[in-house]
Amino acid sequence: MTKTNPGRFFEDYSIGQVIDHAVPRTVSGGERALYHALYPARHALYSSDAFAQACGLPASPIDDLAAFHVVFGKTVPDVSLNAVANLGYAEGRWLKPVFAGDTLRSSSEVIGLKQNSNGKTGVVYVRTRGMNQRDEVVMEYVRWVMVRKNNVDAPAPEPVVPDLAKVIDPADLVIPDGLDFSDYDYTLAGEPHRMADYEVGEVIGHVDGVTIEEAEHMMATRLWQNTAKVHFDATFRPDGQRLIYGGHVISMARALSFNGLANAQMIVGLNGGAHANPCFSGTTVKAWSEVLDKAETAAPGVGAIRLRLVAVSDASVGELKGEDGKYLPQVLLDLDYWALMPA
Amino acid sequence: MTKTNPGRFFEDYSIGQVIDHAVPRTVSGGERALYHALYPARHALYSSDAFAQACGLPASPIDDLAAFHVVFGKTVPDVSLNAVANLGYAEGRWLKPVFAGDTLRSSSEVIGLKQNSNGKTGVVYVRTRGMNQRDEVVMEYVRWVMVRKNNVDAPAPEPVVPDLAKVIDPADLVIPDGLDFSDYDYTLAGEPHRMADYEVGEVIGHVDGVTIEEAEHMMATRLWQNTAKVHFDATFRPDGQRLIYGGHVISMARALSFNGLANAQMIVGLNGGAHANPCFSGTTVKAWSEVLDKAETAAPGVGAIRLRLVAVSDASVGELKGEDGKYLPQVLLDLDYWALMPA
Amino acid sequence: MTKTNPGRFFEDYSIGQVIDHAVPRTVSGGERALYHALYPARHALYSSDAFAQACGLPASPIDDLAAFHVVFGKTVPDVSLNAVANLGYAEGRWLKPVFAGDTLRSSSEVIGLKQNSNGKTGVVYVRTRGMNQRDEVVMEYVRWVMVRKNNVDAPAPEPVVPDLAKVIDPADLVIPDGLDFSDYDYTLAGEPHRMADYEVGEVIGHVDGVTIEEAEHMMATRLWQNTAKVHFDATFRPDGQRLIYGGHVISMARALSFNGLANAQMIVGLNGGAHANPCFSGTTVKAWSEVLDKAETAAPGVGAIRLRLVAVSDASVGELKGEDGKYLPQVLLDLDYWALMPA
Repeated sequence: MTKTNPGRFFEDYSIGQVIDHAVPRTVSGGERALYHALYPARHALYSSDAFAQACGLPASPIDDLAAFHVVFGKTVPDVSLNAVANLGYAEGRWLKPVFAGDTLRSSSEVIGLKQNSNGKTGVVYVRTRGMNQRDEVVMEYVRWVMVRKNNVDAPAPEPVVPDLAKVIDPADLVIPDGLDFSDYDYTLAGEPHRMADYEVGEVIGHVDGVTIEEAEHMMATRLWQNTAKVHFDATFRPDGQRLIYGGHVISMARALSFNGLANAQMIVGLNGGAHANPCFSGTTVKAWSEVLDKAETAAPGVGAIRLRLVAVSDASVGELKGEDGKYLPQVLLDLDYWALMPA
Repeated sequence: MTKTNPGRFFEDYSIGQVIDHAVPRTVSGGERALYHALYPARHALYSSDAFAQACGLPASPIDDLAAFHVVFGKTVPDVSLNAVANLGYAEGRWLKPVFAGDTLRSSSEVIGLKQNSNGKTGVVYVRTRGMNQRDEVVMEYVRWVMVRKNNVDAPAPEPVVPDLAKVIDPADLVIPDGLDFSDYDYTLAGEPHRMADYEVGEVIGHVDGVTIEEAEHMMATRLWQNTAKVHFDATFRPDGQRLIYGGHVISMARALSFNGLANAQMIVGLNGGAHANPCFSGTTVKAWSEVLDKAETAAPGVGAIRLRLVAVSDASVGELKGEDGKYLPQVLLDLDYWALMPA
Repeated sequence: MTKTNPGRFFEDYSIGQVIDHAVPRTVSGGERALYHALYPARHALYSSDAFAQACGLPASPIDDLAAFHVVFGKTVPDVSLNAVANLGYAEGRWLKPVFAGDTLRSSSEVIGLKQNSNGKTGVVYVRTRGMNQRDEVVMEYVRWVMVRKNNVDAPAPEPVVPDLAKVIDPADLVIPDGLDFSDYDYTLAGEPHRMADYEVGEVIGHVDGVTIEEAEHMMATRLWQNTAKVHFDATFRPDGQRLIYGGHVISMARALSFNGLANAQMIVGLNGGAHANPCFSGTTVKAWSEVLDKAETAAPGVGAIRLRLVAVSDASVGELKGEDGKYLPQVLLDLDYWALMPA
């Protein structure tokens, strides 16, 4: 019997199966500093303890996307080691901020299975939860991936496709305890725009761009203990290129979006997302956003803004899909999320 | 109205204007570790809590230049986003060590303005101060940059050129509370040379060299939240090169100067500096120093040494300017600073 | 007199000489995070405070190899700056875990000297000890290097070759205070295999590979304050290549060995090691292990497993030396160590 992990194949999943993922991780100021070294992240709430405290939090949390990457990374050996494609996200919610010193682990439940008509692959839907050392759920999301079958003769399971919300109802967003934007300091935050200044349908080009290096995306991906070979091993793909972890593009685009959305401080909901085209080293990533919706919250001075965040490999703004309904070749990422900002 | 920051142009500045810069930052052991990963920094006071405590400090501070980079980085979106050139520094003083857990922000006052004769650009002088979470000024410096005009028809302001000290009077240097080199451990520090062993005019070639990679200078520059596009975006310059942040060269040269100046522990004064030639990835940076002056301080066993630190792209030592008075092509940096060392 | 450090030459060493190395270092969560960003390290005991506490430790220690690199790095300016080759290791033992906040320094005693027959070089044997801020020895090892003579006319010393153990007796391994694997969580650790599941002679191919970038190995090597020019300066070698620090390959291979040896948690003994072939940027490093021995320990549920860890530049598994007794060209590292795992 081999002792190495071959990963799970499509026929290894069953509805209701719960997989507790390995390698819990304690985060510290080190992960925070690296996040800021890898991405041009400037949202003040994640940069300054004093700013976070003025907003009612005990300290500056680890970036929401860093928490996501840690939770996600643990699922890779169990969920996507043999994945052909990462197909989508839904119903993502951040439930508790993560602070330096917290230890995260994650667990996934199989909620959907559908074999493809080619008989060689199938789609697996999992709901993943990240827990801290007090067993509090800090975030959850649904993700579905196309996974290869190892034994093509294995019988197809009864198809189950979960009914997933297209958008999280703003009433279901969880606002961190104590969050209060009543005395928000726009000068320290970097921009004067509150939610009332944004209009649904407004498109914002974030101007700045970053050319990605191999060392950077590999350091990021390792930091989240994501083990997928395709990100690290230049001999793995026939073309010798290392595919950049989609989460690296998410964090890069989100950080670039500071320029125009500096006050969209906390991410609390992930409605959906597509890695529209693969990204490789040498690409200059830019980003644009579109305001999709706005909502009130119960927290003082805190509004929820729904944003489309698009990462592109050129300077285009506002162009997403072609006449054929397919993503344009320069689109790397199309993400739909809820953020909290001063109302 | 666009929500992204176009940066200020020459006509947007006025004498006496105070700009509070955005994005305060809490530093931790993460920033310390990254500083040591990015530069071959070995000065013991910044490497070991135990060594710093033996010198009378409560703990090992964040490197003085890291504190400078954090304070400086915040000024970029307000001061140098449209800068054509970073022209000089003066009257820089470190007033309080910065420790892990401190939160830094910065503020600049416009102290000089002079439109250039071409009518298209002008020189802006700012005095920048960095403050910690107790509103204590941790450092201050004057910097002047050449900035483009957006509207070339805007009237030229009354020229004001501040009268800046060529050299900080050693009596004005601020010695950190408690600093005491009476029981200095030269073995742990790495070299036996005290200030008395150095002669004014002495030139020291620091021997070692480091070839710079794109990923490194970009990680450093992001870590200090410096947003200037020219450092990150390979499509920004016509030649496709990313200009290395001048501060990266400063820190590299200072770290290399350990070999010969291991006991020049703390930087307390910045008399002046010029980024003599641009630096790009692939350059092997070496450094040499010249002893410019020496002075006593009131602290026990602590002397102040004035040093010229020169970064070069070859192995030359002691050669600075040509017969035309211009910097030689291999000179990347010419920095004039005061450091504290055992007397 | 020059103030820079030329390093010691063969004739500068004498038997019994003790060298206290410079630049003590305090480690923090920053070093931990960087270790995880630089290597695909996933052993749970070094990733999670909660997991380490469940195993009886006060917190998750700094990776054993990171502690080794810190202790080793300090020796470079005194031992191997003029080394032609790093010849071997023996009698390495980890005696105390290192935790965030600890300050390490190191000291070496010359225990062997043998001039080579060519009269130009000689072999220096040192026993190095790393101490924490409480003067407790945290690790020790013997290393021997070939060092150039500066003055080829210097007389050869009386040859002294120390009698070094080929293998550390398992009774001499030091188990960290409190370590207890009785309630070991195999799910969180990532694999179900306990020591009883491994057979002496078993070979494990670790499957995954990582292609190394210049920025990564230089950041790692600087982080450990290793100053050897050959790792950083592309102008140093005639071929323009930067030799990768052998310790970088050790850490990479050890991290890759998680896949198949996830429960070989703590390294407590280093029996020997050879950097079989040089490694350069662009190499895709893979690894395989061979079980060499197993032993009981006095700690509850804790066994000691002796492993050969081999790093290779291709996908070969189990092939070490050719018919000529020399390492095959793809072998980068051959390391022999003791690790602790659930019995």
